[in-house]
Amino acid sequence: MENRGPLERTPRTTLHRIPDRGSYDRDLAYSILDEGLYASVGIAVEGQPFVIPMVYGRMGDRLILHGAAASRLLKAGAKSTPICVTVTLVDGLVFARSGFHHSMNYRSVMVLGEATEITDTEEKLRALDVIVDHAVPGRSKETRPPNRKELVATRVLALSIVEASVKMRTGGPKDDDEDLELEYWAGHVPLRLVASEPISDAAHPPRAPMPEAVASYRRR
Amino acid sequence: MENRGPLERTPRTTLHRIPDRGSYDRDLAYSILDEGLYASVGIAVEGQPFVIPMVYGRMGDRLILHGAAASRLLKAGAKSTPICVTVTLVDGLVFARSGFHHSMNYRSVMVLGEATEITDTEEKLRALDVIVDHAVPGRSKETRPPNRKELVATRVLALSIVEASVKMRTGGPKDDDEDLELEYWAGHVPLRLVASEPISDAAHPPRAPMPEAVASYRRR
Repeated sequence: MENRGPLERTPRTTLHRIPDRGSYDRDLAYSILDEGLYASVGIAVEGQPFVIPMVYGRMGDRLILHGAAASRLLKAGAKSTPICVTVTLVDGLVFARSGFHHSMNYRSVMVLGEATEITDTEEKLRALDVIVDHAVPGRSKETRPPNRKELVATRVLALSIVEASVKMRTGGPKDDDEDLELEYWAGHVPLRLVASEPISDAAHPPRAPMPEAVASYRRR
Repeated sequence: MENRGPLERTPRTTLHRIPDRGSYDRDLAYSILDEGLYASVGIAVEGQPFVIPMVYGRMGDRLILHGAAASRLLKAGAKSTPICVTVTLVDGLVFARSGFHHSMNYRSVMVLGEATEITDTEEKLRALDVIVDHAVPGRSKETRPPNRKELVATRVLALSIVEASVKMRTGGPKDDDEDLELEYWAGHVPLRLVASEPISDAAHPPRAPMPEAVASYRRR
């Protein structure tokens, strides 16, 4: 069963700058995590942070990541190393009268913590399905499931969504009062991720028709 | 003058997994950096990595970041702390016959190194213009420039684009030969970021018309 309580506000997830852009609402965080398509995963190796884009999924109150079992970063992530997973959705560009107040509309979630590796075969298979189903629910049922070789070659990590925060901005420009009469245009431009028509595998025409869930796939 | 040579390939930027998805081509990296709208900036504080979405700009061979002078992360970034700046563009979802070969089409650039703070006033003003001009070139000329108070309140960091790499995937699914006859659909769905019509500041109607560069703003 999913946790419905707020995210854990700690000194590390407390917003100091523009605190009204922050939130610890779990439902809001989950809606952002469920809409995002990739996560920016941060991990430090010998003092150097690396930020890697990764597909992911959400299994209840845990984020699921995966990668090659031999990957240095996944190996490090499995060993109680602190990681950070951030998902950001871009919603628009904000044009103010001053350069200073130019901004972006966005929604983002940052989750901190130590990941654990999922090694139990049944749980690992469910976690991998969660990743395949992330963008198009039900897709995992219309594919060949992982075989033994693929399971061994894949490392799966879970990060509990506990210490986390939401940061977002919406709406138009917020200029300083004394700038409002200046002869500059101000406003915003909404942005959204849009899908084109699906393209069937041209190199090897599929032996099954396009599933309805893919055919109707649209980003908002 | 801009560097035209390749990016620096080091053990830290060498791709071990699927190396044909990697590149050290500087022009390719710059085209991705110029198209991106925000960067995922990684910095480790007391062993914990943080990944923060930030707007940015490119000034020749340097990435420009900015934020509140009082920000903990910007302060750390100004002190020869290793950081990582990753920009990722999502180009599509890839549906294979196996769950294992599901993937995403994307282009990303990762830049590693130590940022330096820009403190010279003239250079700082130019760097801030670069950020305002990033999405819409020329925009900084149609805004009120930063005043002394804003300059003091803002910290500007530059990261040289030296140790960096490109990672990308394009095209349709790449299934295993033995899966090609399976009765599953396979293909891909292109995705792109699209702009809606600009919305003028409703709370305070602007005293200048919408600039042509904003009116014609479109993402591809």
